[in-house]
Amino acid sequence: MTRKIGVIGMGHVGSTVAHYIVAEGFADDLVLIDPNEKKVTADATDFEDAMANLPVHTNITVNDYSALKDADVVISAVGNILLQKDNKEHDRFIELPFTKNAVKDVSAKLKASGFNGILVDITNPCDVITTMYQKFTGLPKNHVMGTGTLLDSSRMRRAVSSELGIDPRSVAGYNLGEHGNSQFTAWSTVRVLGRPITEIAKERNIDLAKLDEVARAGGYTVFHGKHYTNYGIASAAVRLANIIISDARTEIPVSNWHEEYNTYLSYPAIVGRDGIIEQDHLELTDDENEKLKASANYIRTRFEDTIAGMEKEAAAK
Amino acid sequence: MTRKIGVIGMGHVGSTVAHYIVAEGFADDLVLIDPNEKKVTADATDFEDAMANLPVHTNITVNDYSALKDADVVISAVGNILLQKDNKEHDRFIELPFTKNAVKDVSAKLKASGFNGILVDITNPCDVITTMYQKFTGLPKNHVMGTGTLLDSSRMRRAVSSELGIDPRSVAGYNLGEHGNSQFTAWSTVRVLGRPITEIAKERNIDLAKLDEVARAGGYTVFHGKHYTNYGIASAAVRLANIIISDARTEIPVSNWHEEYNTYLSYPAIVGRDGIIEQDHLELTDDENEKLKASANYIRTRFEDTIAGMEKEAAAK
Amino acid sequence: MTRKIGVIGMGHVGSTVAHYIVAEGFADDLVLIDPNEKKVTADATDFEDAMANLPVHTNITVNDYSALKDADVVISAVGNILLQKDNKEHDRFIELPFTKNAVKDVSAKLKASGFNGILVDITNPCDVITTMYQKFTGLPKNHVMGTGTLLDSSRMRRAVSSELGIDPRSVAGYNLGEHGNSQFTAWSTVRVLGRPITEIAKERNIDLAKLDEVARAGGYTVFHGKHYTNYGIASAAVRLANIIISDARTEIPVSNWHEEYNTYLSYPAIVGRDGIIEQDHLELTDDENEKLKASANYIRTRFEDTIAGMEKEAAAK
Amino acid sequence: MTRKIGVIGMGHVGSTVAHYIVAEGFADDLVLIDPNEKKVTADATDFEDAMANLPVHTNITVNDYSALKDADVVISAVGNILLQKDNKEHDRFIELPFTKNAVKDVSAKLKASGFNGILVDITNPCDVITTMYQKFTGLPKNHVMGTGTLLDSSRMRRAVSSELGIDPRSVAGYNLGEHGNSQFTAWSTVRVLGRPITEIAKERNIDLAKLDEVARAGGYTVFHGKHYTNYGIASAAVRLANIIISDARTEIPVSNWHEEYNTYLSYPAIVGRDGIIEQDHLELTDDENEKLKASANYIRTRFEDTIAGMEKEAAAK
Repeated sequence: MTRKIGVIGMGHVGSTVAHYIVAEGFADDLVLIDPNEKKVTADATDFEDAMANLPVHTNITVNDYSALKDADVVISAVGNILLQKDNKEHDRFIELPFTKNAVKDVSAKLKASGFNGILVDITNPCDVITTMYQKFTGLPKNHVMGTGTLLDSSRMRRAVSSELGIDPRSVAGYNLGEHGNSQFTAWSTVRVLGRPITEIAKERNIDLAKLDEVARAGGYTVFHGKHYTNYGIASAAVRLANIIISDARTEIPVSNWHEEYNTYLSYPAIVGRDGIIEQDHLELTDDENEKLKASANYIRTRFEDTIAGMEKEAAAK
Repeated sequence: MTRKIGVIGMGHVGSTVAHYIVAEGFADDLVLIDPNEKKVTADATDFEDAMANLPVHTNITVNDYSALKDADVVISAVGNILLQKDNKEHDRFIELPFTKNAVKDVSAKLKASGFNGILVDITNPCDVITTMYQKFTGLPKNHVMGTGTLLDSSRMRRAVSSELGIDPRSVAGYNLGEHGNSQFTAWSTVRVLGRPITEIAKERNIDLAKLDEVARAGGYTVFHGKHYTNYGIASAAVRLANIIISDARTEIPVSNWHEEYNTYLSYPAIVGRDGIIEQDHLELTDDENEKLKASANYIRTRFEDTIAGMEKEAAAK
Repeated sequence: MTRKIGVIGMGHVGSTVAHYIVAEGFADDLVLIDPNEKKVTADATDFEDAMANLPVHTNITVNDYSALKDADVVISAVGNILLQKDNKEHDRFIELPFTKNAVKDVSAKLKASGFNGILVDITNPCDVITTMYQKFTGLPKNHVMGTGTLLDSSRMRRAVSSELGIDPRSVAGYNLGEHGNSQFTAWSTVRVLGRPITEIAKERNIDLAKLDEVARAGGYTVFHGKHYTNYGIASAAVRLANIIISDARTEIPVSNWHEEYNTYLSYPAIVGRDGIIEQDHLELTDDENEKLKASANYIRTRFEDTIAGMEKEAAAK
Repeated sequence: MTRKIGVIGMGHVGSTVAHYIVAEGFADDLVLIDPNEKKVTADATDFEDAMANLPVHTNITVNDYSALKDADVVISAVGNILLQKDNKEHDRFIELPFTKNAVKDVSAKLKASGFNGILVDITNPCDVITTMYQKFTGLPKNHVMGTGTLLDSSRMRRAVSSELGIDPRSVAGYNLGEHGNSQFTAWSTVRVLGRPITEIAKERNIDLAKLDEVARAGGYTVFHGKHYTNYGIASAAVRLANIIISDARTEIPVSNWHEEYNTYLSYPAIVGRDGIIEQDHLELTDDENEKLKASANYIRTRFEDTIAGMEKEAAAK
């Protein structure tokens, strides 16, 4: 019945997500939504100006929530890049005062549209916002997920691959926890050349802590070099959308609900048309388990504080 | 021996061109060049962060002209978007004071690199800059071309298709002349539904002049809605690069050298690995021929004035 | 709601159609049907063995008509290649005694499945079988079409492009009528290099009748060189399916119902999600109009004779 | 300088390889070679008939070894399917009496052409033939490889993924040794859901030996259902060619030269533009090491016997 994807928020990330979808023909119908009507209309027209030179066709709808009723996937790329301007530390919580309200508003409109597909959140702080989306839309927990550390894992894989002179696709493993400063590389899960990286690192005298630095430094290079990041995250989000739509049941680290921690956090899971199909049960080291727990606590606390604050604000009105 | 593409200038257009190439795997080796080292490195790292989530691999080199020696195609996306800020009329000549010098510099470096592939210019004012590139690099005239009215033609096709409720790919025809304000839709070349659009327009009471307005208005919508345009032009440029590399010998309107007018201007030609293979000989109306001549004169005059000015400046030093 | 395509008949053509869909990820769900259970299961398993080396995922269902209930497009590639063995003339009617009954059976099963998408027929003789499919399934006339002379037009475009040293995609124009021996190139519709081919042919001393020969000879080269043809026709059918699913509203020559001739025959039309959206009104020469009428009469007569024969047979039982 | 691929042998496998390349536009120039001139010309024309309906262009050359001089990759798909007709056991050595001579002939012609790219062998028995190709062409050992157990590994991954209800792309691990009856699944290398499959199998009561059966049975289903296999192997070979051309440096199990065993055999390696870049050093179990050694001995002995036989034959003339 044709593929329909919605993208909410047409800043750097949302418009790159939309471009990637249009250029490859991943969707038949694409719904673009942004409060800045001039910007979203500009992008839509720009895509339509591209159409005659593209081999695939996409039908584009602008700022119509009702068109999301039968969307397969909605991607939230809501953000406020201006808030990032003086963000020396690249702390993703700097956007929360803006995004928490934006997401509440989007959720209400999504709910009103009758949307009952899979919601993929990019909006930061990713895990807190993903939790909010689930709460505000009332969608099943397994139908809401965040891109989370899919991007951090890709950065780790880029750093490892660059050190070893191999393809990042040939580096397996995950960054876990918050898509933020409490996340960590679970080195016990990383494998290259058919073996655990811990062994390879010993043999070749590779400092894994330094590789973590390289991965993180890459993120800073991107963020401080252009004041936003878009290509890495767009590829992650669109890959996730394709996995969902084609029901590929692929193992991938995304922010998904973890009952034992009572929060969303990034951890590998099998993803398909029914959202989160199954969660991995990794054999982490004690240290990694501690870090994961700490990251989970951090996300849950920030989420609870935010909701409490929003309720207080609402009550005060 | 693998496909190698260079992109010079990593602003909105250049980075979108690069992203499209990376996302689709159109090149094996991609060379990115920009005087803003932080920005080009940021984009390159962002692409590398995308790699683990992309099915195709691209090797990226940053700011190394010598790597262009054996490039198949170099795309010039040099520009200065800040100059566009108060550009109410979207006059592409507003960039010339900046681009003329940038292009001279790029040409010298390209020449020094030993590059002898095909040069595709997006930099505005497109036809004047394309002429400069040919002069400054000394490359054969048929090995230098500009995207020219490929974008204008796509906009016209979008406007026509939207009016008729059909695919823009099913609208044939060209905008000719300058990629600028003297360009025009050669309605005598436009065909839809198996017939000349002039007939369809009569039958259906369609005002072609209004369609021209719609096409132009689309361009303004994009430009004024986001202060730049990137997706339409990037799709045009990458399509052109692919046509060249695969030696497809496709008919396409691009800015190419016309001996009879002694200038570059947009007019359909057969394009392949050897650049401009053959030029169309359209049967234009008298009015269209007049417009084309006027557009050609405008380009040639602007080019000659610019070169004279540059020589005067050089002499004054 | 994901893309679902059915392919009925897994001979040379059907399996190539399916492979192209799987390799490019054009569908999320693919339903393969063939009475030879061993063959269709072999192909399905072979596709699944390919999956780990493909970047895109497709879910494959074998021999389950009920899965076609919500298919977007069903492609009929039913055929009996053995009947072609001694087919010196490549007369597509040699398959009719087999395909007429197969198609009646398939239609009943399609109808029972509740399928109400678009039916694309490749099965030969294409126009007669397409007419039968519409009659037997009871689907709206604009929801049933045949690939018809889309392939013949591609062969003509290949022959013309080869003569001129240009891209076949840069040759516009159509072969019309029956996908069979009464079809013809409507040279008045063929355009290259921005002009009618009739003019170019005069200038360059090109014998159009000879180009027709070259086009036809190509078909024979394929058929007699391997006793079947598959790649050209598969590309045509899959392109058509993609146009339908993405609602591209592309102009394309396919076998579609023509009220004035009371038959299916190939003629360009705008195709989209609602099937045949609009038919072209070409300005053919008198000679071409005669040929088209003759071709239409031939198809209609063959269809009526076949149906009469089938009814007689049924009555005799 | 554009991508050029050669395919030698246009039977079921070679023509499917070529079709996949043409349909996706993976090469700019494609050289097809087969002693059956009618068949290879038929396929080439069929591809050209597809071109007008494909978005990408490929230039096709037929039966011209000299065109391989600057090819990036040559894929050998030489075979004789007739010899497989009564092959109840699917023993790949049944083809050797034919392929050993064919490969000697092809090697001489490749050498004469000046080809110095990467040679990828599909021809069976794969490891023996790959060894012969290296010997007869004199190409560096790391520039010659066979698809080997890349296909067997894909079948194992299909069987495992089907048992667990997950994506075959989310099953890591290798089949090692001969692409033939002495190969085996190295279960110690197989990982799913973030853990060794041996653990998952214990928890879920999965019989790994039975999964091996399922993988093998799939191969038989394909082979006995249609008397050849083509889609799985073609996807493997083309993926390998793309890895080489784009210098992706991907880890992949292919037949590569192992000094310690003095033979070609399948074992994971990093593959790039310079062929085999680096070999994995797996931590196999003792049992797996024994199996690998036995498989290596089998291949080496068969190779030596074959060469000895060929020399005796040559001497007898």
